[in-house]
Amino acid sequence: MTPPSTPARVGIIGANGYGGGELSRLLSRHPGVELVGFSSRQFEGQPFRKAWPNADLEGTFENAQAVTERADIVFLALPNGLAMDLVPPLLAAGKRVIDLSADYRLPPEVYAQWYGKTHTSPELCAEAVYGLPELNREALRAARLVANPGCYVTATALALAPLARAGLIEGSVIVDGISGISGAGRNAAEFSFAEANENVQAYKVAGTHRHTAEMEANLARAGQEAVVTFTPHVAPYTRGILVTAYATPARPVSEAELLELYRAMYADEPFVQVLEGELPTPKAVSGSNRCDVAVRFDARARRIVAFGAIDNLMKGMAGEAVQNLNLMLGLEETLGLPRWGMWP
Amino acid sequence: MTPPSTPARVGIIGANGYGGGELSRLLSRHPGVELVGFSSRQFEGQPFRKAWPNADLEGTFENAQAVTERADIVFLALPNGLAMDLVPPLLAAGKRVIDLSADYRLPPEVYAQWYGKTHTSPELCAEAVYGLPELNREALRAARLVANPGCYVTATALALAPLARAGLIEGSVIVDGISGISGAGRNAAEFSFAEANENVQAYKVAGTHRHTAEMEANLARAGQEAVVTFTPHVAPYTRGILVTAYATPARPVSEAELLELYRAMYADEPFVQVLEGELPTPKAVSGSNRCDVAVRFDARARRIVAFGAIDNLMKGMAGEAVQNLNLMLGLEETLGLPRWGMWP
Amino acid sequence: MTPPSTPARVGIIGANGYGGGELSRLLSRHPGVELVGFSSRQFEGQPFRKAWPNADLEGTFENAQAVTERADIVFLALPNGLAMDLVPPLLAAGKRVIDLSADYRLPPEVYAQWYGKTHTSPELCAEAVYGLPELNREALRAARLVANPGCYVTATALALAPLARAGLIEGSVIVDGISGISGAGRNAAEFSFAEANENVQAYKVAGTHRHTAEMEANLARAGQEAVVTFTPHVAPYTRGILVTAYATPARPVSEAELLELYRAMYADEPFVQVLEGELPTPKAVSGSNRCDVAVRFDARARRIVAFGAIDNLMKGMAGEAVQNLNLMLGLEETLGLPRWGMWP
Amino acid sequence: MTPPSTPARVGIIGANGYGGGELSRLLSRHPGVELVGFSSRQFEGQPFRKAWPNADLEGTFENAQAVTERADIVFLALPNGLAMDLVPPLLAAGKRVIDLSADYRLPPEVYAQWYGKTHTSPELCAEAVYGLPELNREALRAARLVANPGCYVTATALALAPLARAGLIEGSVIVDGISGISGAGRNAAEFSFAEANENVQAYKVAGTHRHTAEMEANLARAGQEAVVTFTPHVAPYTRGILVTAYATPARPVSEAELLELYRAMYADEPFVQVLEGELPTPKAVSGSNRCDVAVRFDARARRIVAFGAIDNLMKGMAGEAVQNLNLMLGLEETLGLPRWGMWP
Repeated sequence: MTPPSTPARVGIIGANGYGGGELSRLLSRHPGVELVGFSSRQFEGQPFRKAWPNADLEGTFENAQAVTERADIVFLALPNGLAMDLVPPLLAAGKRVIDLSADYRLPPEVYAQWYGKTHTSPELCAEAVYGLPELNREALRAARLVANPGCYVTATALALAPLARAGLIEGSVIVDGISGISGAGRNAAEFSFAEANENVQAYKVAGTHRHTAEMEANLARAGQEAVVTFTPHVAPYTRGILVTAYATPARPVSEAELLELYRAMYADEPFVQVLEGELPTPKAVSGSNRCDVAVRFDARARRIVAFGAIDNLMKGMAGEAVQNLNLMLGLEETLGLPRWGMWP
Repeated sequence: MTPPSTPARVGIIGANGYGGGELSRLLSRHPGVELVGFSSRQFEGQPFRKAWPNADLEGTFENAQAVTERADIVFLALPNGLAMDLVPPLLAAGKRVIDLSADYRLPPEVYAQWYGKTHTSPELCAEAVYGLPELNREALRAARLVANPGCYVTATALALAPLARAGLIEGSVIVDGISGISGAGRNAAEFSFAEANENVQAYKVAGTHRHTAEMEANLARAGQEAVVTFTPHVAPYTRGILVTAYATPARPVSEAELLELYRAMYADEPFVQVLEGELPTPKAVSGSNRCDVAVRFDARARRIVAFGAIDNLMKGMAGEAVQNLNLMLGLEETLGLPRWGMWP
Repeated sequence: MTPPSTPARVGIIGANGYGGGELSRLLSRHPGVELVGFSSRQFEGQPFRKAWPNADLEGTFENAQAVTERADIVFLALPNGLAMDLVPPLLAAGKRVIDLSADYRLPPEVYAQWYGKTHTSPELCAEAVYGLPELNREALRAARLVANPGCYVTATALALAPLARAGLIEGSVIVDGISGISGAGRNAAEFSFAEANENVQAYKVAGTHRHTAEMEANLARAGQEAVVTFTPHVAPYTRGILVTAYATPARPVSEAELLELYRAMYADEPFVQVLEGELPTPKAVSGSNRCDVAVRFDARARRIVAFGAIDNLMKGMAGEAVQNLNLMLGLEETLGLPRWGMWP
Repeated sequence: MTPPSTPARVGIIGANGYGGGELSRLLSRHPGVELVGFSSRQFEGQPFRKAWPNADLEGTFENAQAVTERADIVFLALPNGLAMDLVPPLLAAGKRVIDLSADYRLPPEVYAQWYGKTHTSPELCAEAVYGLPELNREALRAARLVANPGCYVTATALALAPLARAGLIEGSVIVDGISGISGAGRNAAEFSFAEANENVQAYKVAGTHRHTAEMEANLARAGQEAVVTFTPHVAPYTRGILVTAYATPARPVSEAELLELYRAMYADEPFVQVLEGELPTPKAVSGSNRCDVAVRFDARARRIVAFGAIDNLMKGMAGEAVQNLNLMLGLEETLGLPRWGMWP
């Protein structure tokens, strides 16, 4: 597959947050697209480097309209609740949209229940394609509107999907997640260094975190319904998520058999790596679009323990969005996406 | 209760590791004892400040024999497997011993199974008193030999004991622990800064961590037997442990009822604090001998989620040992033990 | 010297910031005083633990007036520029005041120059006693109003004072400081974890940081005038300051001679420790009121290099204030002040 | 300039350390070369991913001879003192060598003085080309043997070169450096996380750090001799170096004039960026081969303050080596070298 002669024109709305910044970095180097603009309300009219001292990109933040007019494909990297108003006119104008927020990830009534807000473009929720290529690849190719998954959700879905596909889960599932602090966004005032350092915190526990609904939807998507108890934690590092998930097997299994399920499901996946002797860690995938997974069996307790690690800003956000873009454009799925990040 | 006119003479064997260093700091300021010596093979003959640049203590590391000869009560702060040979002659010489290692925490046959080694003084395992005051206070007062608990174990036992005492646990229990890196000891070469920073790692998963047996013993001690699946993680901070534990209730419960159980059990405990609106964090107990606990109920999944946080070197090690010392000497249980650590 | 039969009544204005929090911790345990109240505009009416999850203190934040009415000695732990209006009525009401801000550290015209603001109680600047006991002990005993030094300033003054006292400084001095992030205060939004971690930053360089004037005043106070070039840096840790200072010797010196000057000046100082084989580090003084100093001579470049390390919230702020309090009350100067902090 | 039809064959000796790991990552993706092998004594015979869990590279560590036989250009990423014996036979066999150690950076007699060791191939020191393209570009194109600079040295040289070139330095220079902990190498046992975290340390102070000689050589190379007082510090972050340097101007200057010198010298440099309103930070160049510099003038003290920041493993080591490789091969100098790293 070769890049088309005319690269697709892409634009980013909300390029001053972590998702938008990472998108800018990936798309400005992407050989199959042309980055035609980026917007920010906070930085409108200022050079890109004002927001991103690390960047190597000329140009100035514009307003959203200026960017979307020039783009064929629009990435929305905004806080939850804004995309649902912006998407309908974009689709009407013939644009394709990749939305990094939660707005189109769930059916409107489930959205209302978890996000406490009535959806303003509910009719598009059914059309939106959930952007997890490993569970949804074919549908993504033709998508007009992609709902990019949540960060914890991607790691959890890939850690548990082989079990759900094999119908191996009995009863409910426990998901214990640990996130670096970039997951809270760039303006997370409650995570000042001196307060957040030398600590680890659980938050939104016991069935109150919104990603729970999306995790349950993915188990169903993979083949098996199950209730999830999700406990997110935040630890003092910058990038990455590690998920440790627990399931009771529906029938007798061995660790070797479990491993075989994982290997089989992910054999051809460019961005999922099944580890055997080692366990996934965020450091090993930092800066990469890879998700590392592993599975173990605690025979004494008859319990499956599954692990997944991602870079929350790459495979958990901007990298996954670019992977979806590649599918939408018929490009090589790995184009512009590193599998090898930095260590240390 | 007032300190006796003649303070007890205490000595520390292995004062160059984190447990021994923290013991030195606490005992040198403790108004009820006299610290008569401290030993280290690595630093023998060198001033205390050579090992501890933070310290305000004159004197020189000696060998173990010189210290134990002058002491009435001996703290052993050594790697696992050494105490079992040192304790018999100490008891025979009329000393009382507080052992910070795992050597006397378990019955000898359970010890052999988890630690892969035959116990060399198995007859003392039955006499040894398990050093968790909240579950074992009366027995500690007269103890000759105290087995100080493991760090993860203390946080887990206090997080789950009210449930076990009420017979509320059905089936097996999941314990997800996150530790700072000081838990790996002072010479943990595998945790060099550049390798360990910006990462979080699970290790010894799926029923392979030795603290599992001790956790199960404490559930039984509190009133209910249950198998434990324990997943330890290490995160890039220095001090403290946070445990998130999951149990299925044996009968219908409400969160209010659970909270009442915790409040009732810990109402008079000087070093356990039951939180309500907030969740326990290691930062809130850093430098303190306090354990903060909390309990929540996930009604959707019908699952109890319990939390415990400690400073692993205080309530998880040296502080708990001093608390046991106070009990053994008939002193005020809180003597020499801060409840208020530093923030930030 | 024994504590008086009736302990002095002390109150804290601004007890929700890092300085006020540390003062609360020290004063609530201080055997020579009674902490009669603490105020906070943000937390007025709320329990102390709402602001300080680590604390072991009952009671509720009040407004400033309620606290000052009950207190004999008032600690002001407020942002710069507020104390100058609060102090005159407090003194008029017969209170003694220890001010942690910069308001009374400099002559009013120097204050105006560096802080860009006309002083509103300039007549008190002359009466205020600069609160660095090592340079000003006798004057502090009778002080009504103490101006507690800046954090960088304390470390710098103690690192350079023996040189200034010996008239050894030729030309100007360079001070290179590295601070942990708690130095920016508790609400430092620009230092969110993900932005500040994995970085080190210089700021307010080339003669623009306000502590410069105070450093120069201390050199004069110690015996020699010199211009200072000060470069502050912030590094990703929580507590502590390390200062590396450079001076050209006014006459030939040897490292041994320099060391002797430091030893002689600090021989009887309870909170200054002169290191020889080692160099000062913030970790070695974390949680302690100690300042560690060292001096070296670069013979190739004919340049003196002096070092000072403190815990910025202890000897650099709250600990120094309590040391000043002890002097004002005629108590043992070390009362309630640890010399031995935590490691690790 | 286009890559040649037959890419150069490159090999890495010592690919298990941080320099070798970063080289592997860069060279395996470099469009102008073929990575034909990598060696490690510790990992010989094991897959590359055993040493680098982040990697996306097949193949196995070999011994050095197997690698060098297949390579046209050999990168030596070994501890100091080994290259001097390995290089002569490699050159004799017609290979070109880029040495990341200090072995060929200095004249043999200066090497002996600072490294305490007699050079075993002194005749090659004169032939070796010092690998700082900004000062030495033309000589590098034809080099058989390149001595890649030290990490602190690169940042210092680029921060001070415009001053030396203009003859603006009077007397000696002070260089205050802060390094992340990866600078100590991958097996730095003294920097275990719990010991190194929450601290900042000066080391090898007052004219004892070996990079001093190399810094002085670069000032001479840029146009002006000066003695350097260098104080390295290590702070708790992983990657990057920030250098703050001080010089007294030889004649009256203004900050605007200084800035103009920097702009002029670096106008066409692909990897040096002169900042104006902001100051260089390691975070802004993390993962990039860029060096950010800035200059300020402290008029009160009549002192120039210059800043330089690099990623010590990129522009300070592996990235600079690849930049040198590009010059040696006549390729585009920026080939395979990112200017835009990750944030956060």
